Amino acid sequence: MKALIYHGPGVKALEEHTPPALAAAGDAIVRITKTTICGTDLHILKGDVPSCTPGRVLGHEGVGVVHQAGPAVAAFRPGDHVLISCISACGKCEYCRRGMYSHCSSGGWILGNTIDGTQAEYVRIPHADTSLYKIAPGLDKEALVMLSDILPTGIECGVLNGKVQPGSSVAIVGSGPVGLAALLTAQFYSPSEIIMVDIDRSRLELSRRFGATATVDNSNGKAGEKIMAMTAGVGVDCAIEAVGVPASFLLCEEIIAPGGTIANVGVHGVKVDLHLQRLWSQNITITTRLVDTVTTPMLLKTVQARKIDPARLITHRFKLGEIMDAYETFGNAASTHALKVLIEA
Amino acid sequence: MKALIYHGPGVKALEEHTPPALAAAGDAIVRITKTTICGTDLHILKGDVPSCTPGRVLGHEGVGVVHQAGPAVAAFRPGDHVLISCISACGKCEYCRRGMYSHCSSGGWILGNTIDGTQAEYVRIPHADTSLYKIAPGLDKEALVMLSDILPTGIECGVLNGKVQPGSSVAIVGSGPVGLAALLTAQFYSPSEIIMVDIDRSRLELSRRFGATATVDNSNGKAGEKIMAMTAGVGVDCAIEAVGVPASFLLCEEIIAPGGTIANVGVHGVKVDLHLQRLWSQNITITTRLVDTVTTPMLLKTVQARKIDPARLITHRFKLGEIMDAYETFGNAASTHALKVLIEA
Amino acid sequence: MKALIYHGPGVKALEEHTPPALAAAGDAIVRITKTTICGTDLHILKGDVPSCTPGRVLGHEGVGVVHQAGPAVAAFRPGDHVLISCISACGKCEYCRRGMYSHCSSGGWILGNTIDGTQAEYVRIPHADTSLYKIAPGLDKEALVMLSDILPTGIECGVLNGKVQPGSSVAIVGSGPVGLAALLTAQFYSPSEIIMVDIDRSRLELSRRFGATATVDNSNGKAGEKIMAMTAGVGVDCAIEAVGVPASFLLCEEIIAPGGTIANVGVHGVKVDLHLQRLWSQNITITTRLVDTVTTPMLLKTVQARKIDPARLITHRFKLGEIMDAYETFGNAASTHALKVLIEA
Amino acid sequence: MKALIYHGPGVKALEEHTPPALAAAGDAIVRITKTTICGTDLHILKGDVPSCTPGRVLGHEGVGVVHQAGPAVAAFRPGDHVLISCISACGKCEYCRRGMYSHCSSGGWILGNTIDGTQAEYVRIPHADTSLYKIAPGLDKEALVMLSDILPTGIECGVLNGKVQPGSSVAIVGSGPVGLAALLTAQFYSPSEIIMVDIDRSRLELSRRFGATATVDNSNGKAGEKIMAMTAGVGVDCAIEAVGVPASFLLCEEIIAPGGTIANVGVHGVKVDLHLQRLWSQNITITTRLVDTVTTPMLLKTVQARKIDPARLITHRFKLGEIMDAYETFGNAASTHALKVLIEA
Repeated sequence: MKALIYHGPGVKALEEHTPPALAAAGDAIVRITKTTICGTDLHILKGDVPSCTPGRVLGHEGVGVVHQAGPAVAAFRPGDHVLISCISACGKCEYCRRGMYSHCSSGGWILGNTIDGTQAEYVRIPHADTSLYKIAPGLDKEALVMLSDILPTGIECGVLNGKVQPGSSVAIVGSGPVGLAALLTAQFYSPSEIIMVDIDRSRLELSRRFGATATVDNSNGKAGEKIMAMTAGVGVDCAIEAVGVPASFLLCEEIIAPGGTIANVGVHGVKVDLHLQRLWSQNITITTRLVDTVTTPMLLKTVQARKIDPARLITHRFKLGEIMDAYETFGNAASTHALKVLIEA
Repeated sequence: MKALIYHGPGVKALEEHTPPALAAAGDAIVRITKTTICGTDLHILKGDVPSCTPGRVLGHEGVGVVHQAGPAVAAFRPGDHVLISCISACGKCEYCRRGMYSHCSSGGWILGNTIDGTQAEYVRIPHADTSLYKIAPGLDKEALVMLSDILPTGIECGVLNGKVQPGSSVAIVGSGPVGLAALLTAQFYSPSEIIMVDIDRSRLELSRRFGATATVDNSNGKAGEKIMAMTAGVGVDCAIEAVGVPASFLLCEEIIAPGGTIANVGVHGVKVDLHLQRLWSQNITITTRLVDTVTTPMLLKTVQARKIDPARLITHRFKLGEIMDAYETFGNAASTHALKVLIEA
Repeated sequence: MKALIYHGPGVKALEEHTPPALAAAGDAIVRITKTTICGTDLHILKGDVPSCTPGRVLGHEGVGVVHQAGPAVAAFRPGDHVLISCISACGKCEYCRRGMYSHCSSGGWILGNTIDGTQAEYVRIPHADTSLYKIAPGLDKEALVMLSDILPTGIECGVLNGKVQPGSSVAIVGSGPVGLAALLTAQFYSPSEIIMVDIDRSRLELSRRFGATATVDNSNGKAGEKIMAMTAGVGVDCAIEAVGVPASFLLCEEIIAPGGTIANVGVHGVKVDLHLQRLWSQNITITTRLVDTVTTPMLLKTVQARKIDPARLITHRFKLGEIMDAYETFGNAASTHALKVLIEA
Repeated sequence: MKALIYHGPGVKALEEHTPPALAAAGDAIVRITKTTICGTDLHILKGDVPSCTPGRVLGHEGVGVVHQAGPAVAAFRPGDHVLISCISACGKCEYCRRGMYSHCSSGGWILGNTIDGTQAEYVRIPHADTSLYKIAPGLDKEALVMLSDILPTGIECGVLNGKVQPGSSVAIVGSGPVGLAALLTAQFYSPSEIIMVDIDRSRLELSRRFGATATVDNSNGKAGEKIMAMTAGVGVDCAIEAVGVPASFLLCEEIIAPGGTIANVGVHGVKVDLHLQRLWSQNITITTRLVDTVTTPMLLKTVQARKIDPARLITHRFKLGEIMDAYETFGNAASTHALKVLIEA
């Protein structure tokens, strides 16, 4: 089969690769019909993710059709249309019992990381019963590719951890795909203000179309001052960090109101300063989270009920044979204005 | 009347002072019968609290008897025995409505800070109806002095923010009075482990008598390693920081289990390093809080029901005339083994 | 002044009445500019509310302008435009501290019940600081009349108690004004289904325009069967009872899914059968609530942010001099299709 | 093997029976070492549980040793000492994902009901990975038999649903084994009052030794009056119904405070009157629940940490060969004072 292989920092190739086979009774083999590229894939290619070793098929998002199901798989049969979760969950360990699938003792984020992933014609999904989701007839499968990772990440790490509520004020720092996913899902809870912060004007413009009530261009580094002025010096109830660098986390510390919550979504590579000398008395909460994908069933319902249209995040479309171009487009988002690139297998 | 006056960094004196008078319709004048000294008073005396200016009567804890009640005071009459909350709350502003009395727009921590406090024969209490609590007959008034600040602080900033639950594992870093208050109140929720960390052996010994299931002497700076070993490499569900220095916060970052909560209680003077490069994916929560004293009614019930005996925190007793000695004893806790010093007015 | 007076079961009159005067330091006198009639006023007129005695000025909803403020009122000055809450709250008693203003020991629902109400030119508001809300400039005051009672009732007793969440399925039994208020506010949480049940076709039609995803005409008493069929035999996550008769509560028992919540909003005059022989094992929750109006600040924000337009509930407009006609119109809703009638004073 | 067989209403026998065999890949065969009898077994024998048909091996509680594990069982190996949950849970269906194991689409309460149970030498446990719990060395296995059903039932259906909190007031109606399990586990949360209600004096006496702060003998039917007097006319924050008859539920309605919760634990055979004409405005919550056994891991920790000693519920001990006597003793609790009878296999 064709697969996109990671060959070490900076090197990837679309190659012929042995198709996966069932390895455990609970595995399923899924024929990929649609996949996409994640910012994390770019991190891997930079050499930032040591757990992912050369030879690995990349990708942890996608929809497809069950090709084979192991003898212990109860919920799926060959031919079933399925959504693949970026998180594999056994459903049995202590973490899974608590809904913390991200830390599953035999799963978590392994697809396209420690086992072969979805940027291929076929993929092996461990713990299939609790890592795949049936797709109801009539649902837009392109839209559902956004439910593998980006929408659960936006809502779980950003919106739910940030306790967004009707009438609350929200700032989202970073309007990349994950920040926009947070923006879309924050609206499930009817906050009265959603301020998007970025340095890219076209993304800020897009944010308004996606429901932001205000945007702040932080090119001059003065977003903190602006947001404090916009909120009468109080700050916001919820600040969502969706970049992953110290400056954007510090901005969240600057604009958080007493009693508010900083919900970190970004993947950080270095430590940040936590200004406890000011914040110790501010009754704030800071949260971190690797997505658990526990919201997937709920998200499927909201897509089905047309409360949200995740396909709005898709800007470009490619065939699997063109995946090297897709990486090029996605990797140069500043010039291509790419959000999510859809890859048809 | 006699009062302990702050005269600028390092200088305090027990002096004659004009007794307070009603200033607003909701004020009450309380004759102090028992008060105590807080670590915060020592901070003020070091010059660390700029809001507290020379000439101020110190103290924000105590019990007493209502001497005068303003015309708008509904709940108290002269002669009522009352507990004084360290937090003054109007009960009306947006923060008070949310139970965040610490940030009351016309109150908060003002006693012995921006207005005269309780280390005196009389004190003026603003917003008396929502800042005083009636003492039921038969309750141990010495014990109740601990309910002005230290017990609400331990339970609200530490135990409740830390989500201590039956069966959970807790580490409390710092076994000073506030750490011990967290230790006592954590037991309301039946955690299976409470590990106390300190460098003072006598306090660790005391911690065991107060209910710690294990103690770790951190004199050698290896508490992190020890606690990870004690928890099979997983860490604790809840880490309570009760010191207020970077090292102890960093220890909490080191020992927190995936999905756990770091509840900061300590008053910090400098920033700390937040190791997001490791913690971003650990699904943790960090909380800060200035005590709101919303738990005071509940704490009164638990004292009355003998679920807790806060008087155990009292190690020394003085008369108001001896308050300079009381400060001496409290300020040299390492040698005097003082926890809370009770001052009879 | 002119006022609508209750003279015992079945008898009311618009009469001259002595204007109210300040009675306590925390009182305010408000000049009414807009008021309305509530289903509860009709209950009083039927003689169903013994606490309301003849001679009483009716009405517990409205907006106006502060005319006089007692010496202990801190937040309001004459000339302030205010929203009047149907619940008077002292902000100090044990119930108010818990946010249960409905059971305030010196307040609760007293306006137009045990003290004179708002269907008059002036009204005395006790505990003004915690029972009035400032109206920001530019807000639609007609819309805000809906925030005195009907919207808080819909959201607190129905939506919040019913734990409506993104993706959940909701049935609202009764599409009168309160049922419609629940319908409007349920949408703050993006449920995937909201099924409205009634026997009045025009109201069901209206419900669709207000956001219902489905409607069930229960004229034939088969709503239970239909809803079970619509939900694949499972039932709904949340059933809101907004009528107040046994049949509608029984319907909720019939359609509630395992794990679901029945949120009672209706005012009941007789007991109902609770089928515990079936429900004991269904992991359900049943809630009752007299509105606390704790959501008023949040509702003001959502109105200001245009997340909701409560003015849609207003179907008819009258002058205070025409209030007898307004009662006529409101009392014959089946033929007049009245929802809320606005009365300009 | 020996097994206790249900032969229809009123008829049971200890007989030779074919030992169970693995039927699905996720099954385990457990050799029972200790089991017990539940009130539900008596209900079956009265003919009240139509889902349980003649020929069935009874029993849904016990500990044992894994004898055989199906190929899909990941967590257990032959020789492992295990606690058997009364609820079988697949861990995969929508209900299991939500922690509502009681309604598992291929499990729930099936042991000793729709499939053969634990009052035998061997039992087949479906979904073994998520229905068995490993027993740490050194734990008292007799005590753990109480964790199969009675303790999770007491805490989940009673204490957790009833929101017992530090300082709250609790009444438990019924001091049979389940009521006592609620009494023991309620103390995890340090309520200030726990009032036990029963008509059996010896059980009330026992309740005091188990931690009740007060007891009410309801032989004269005046428990409601007494409890209202004991609570200054306010009622209790939490009323736990642990009998399963209308009178005891009505008592809960009578004594519940505004804002309180009635947590139903009892198995009811007939409907009850819900006095909504009084309760609609009382802001109360009523909950029902079939135990989910989601608290089992937490309970294991509290037993290990000696926060609770469930073995106190065991009053009699028998061999499996004497199980007919055990039923006799358990069935005549009024005269034998039996709580739980332990049966050694």
